[in-house]
Amino acid sequence: MLIVIPLFDRFTALDAVGPFQVLVGLPDATTVFAADRPGPVTDNTGVLALTAGAAFADVPRPDIIVVPGGPGEVGHRTDGPLHDWLVAADRTSAWTTSVCTGSLILAGAGLLDGRRATTNWMAMDELARLGAVPTAERYVFDGKYATAAGVSAGIDMALALAGRIGGDELGRRLQLGIEYDPQPPYQAGSPATAPAEIVAELRAGSRFARV
Amino acid sequence: MLIVIPLFDRFTALDAVGPFQVLVGLPDATTVFAADRPGPVTDNTGVLALTAGAAFADVPRPDIIVVPGGPGEVGHRTDGPLHDWLVAADRTSAWTTSVCTGSLILAGAGLLDGRRATTNWMAMDELARLGAVPTAERYVFDGKYATAAGVSAGIDMALALAGRIGGDELGRRLQLGIEYDPQPPYQAGSPATAPAEIVAELRAGSRFARV
Repeated sequence: MLIVIPLFDRFTALDAVGPFQVLVGLPDATTVFAADRPGPVTDNTGVLALTAGAAFADVPRPDIIVVPGGPGEVGHRTDGPLHDWLVAADRTSAWTTSVCTGSLILAGAGLLDGRRATTNWMAMDELARLGAVPTAERYVFDGKYATAAGVSAGIDMALALAGRIGGDELGRRLQLGIEYDPQPPYQAGSPATAPAEIVAELRAGSRFARV
Repeated sequence: MLIVIPLFDRFTALDAVGPFQVLVGLPDATTVFAADRPGPVTDNTGVLALTAGAAFADVPRPDIIVVPGGPGEVGHRTDGPLHDWLVAADRTSAWTTSVCTGSLILAGAGLLDGRRATTNWMAMDELARLGAVPTAERYVFDGKYATAAGVSAGIDMALALAGRIGGDELGRRLQLGIEYDPQPPYQAGSPATAPAEIVAELRAGSRFARV
């Protein structure tokens, strides 16, 4: 089983590394980070680079695709090497998935037309504009497509995906393996629970804010 | 404010990237991944490399230190460049922290002697052997030392740390920023909640298993 996580400039690191840390534990799986060409790819903060171990051309037929989000996603919705690879790879993938605004790349490629999907809470309108049916859940499965909400939600999605692939026993083992017993110090992880003024502030400052 | 995350061969990627994704959002902070020398450092799976942007010698006086865990930690408990840097940097740090078995590096350096601390659930005996007082909590603050439980716990610890540094309002903003509203698909994230047979299986297969 081949798992490919495509990287692009200004991706969000936790979007990629959260699901990676879960899925790399699947039995008999090979996990590969891929990009236009092998080598370091810098995240949205400019601080961290992850190394792509392969070029897209080296991994044309993944079983599982995990597309991270991040502000760089906007350059990959309708053309370019990542887009072309995704469209071709999706034809034979068993699962095509995304985290955060990675779903905008999927939707831009037409893969989520009419499908229930999620994304970063600030990008739900944009996801609708691109043809998906925005669904405010932590992660959403619709056929072979699984999309996760913002950034940290990829961990939950990946565990649920692992359970669907290998059964609940495997899912539980992987969850214990990353000691995923979350105890967030605040009730503030979603726009439904965070104070309204923080929600408004982040929304106003986001790249999806209406002018 | 300077935040340094030291990397070493066979670290666990999510240990480092979880807190990174939180702390990089602190106002007026500079975050740096450091290693013996700048360049890629490969994780415990062999699949993923993160790029260290600096050598330890370049960042002698961090305000915050975040030491990840991973099987490679065992080589850094009592000597070597990471150990030497840590001991010196801890003299002036405001916060010295760890995730998962990163606390064994802190304890090996004598920084946790008699202090309450935590680590990966499979390494609690080892933490005691190294002089700390193992405490089965998601994260533990004792003075300027903060230690997190296994792998994913670094996210919770980093949010709590951000709250102590910048106040609860900042902590909430950062939590919403990574949309940290966890909904684990299983009740299996700690040895207290996972099925006993999975706990026993992982414990028997761990590098801390008693022969």
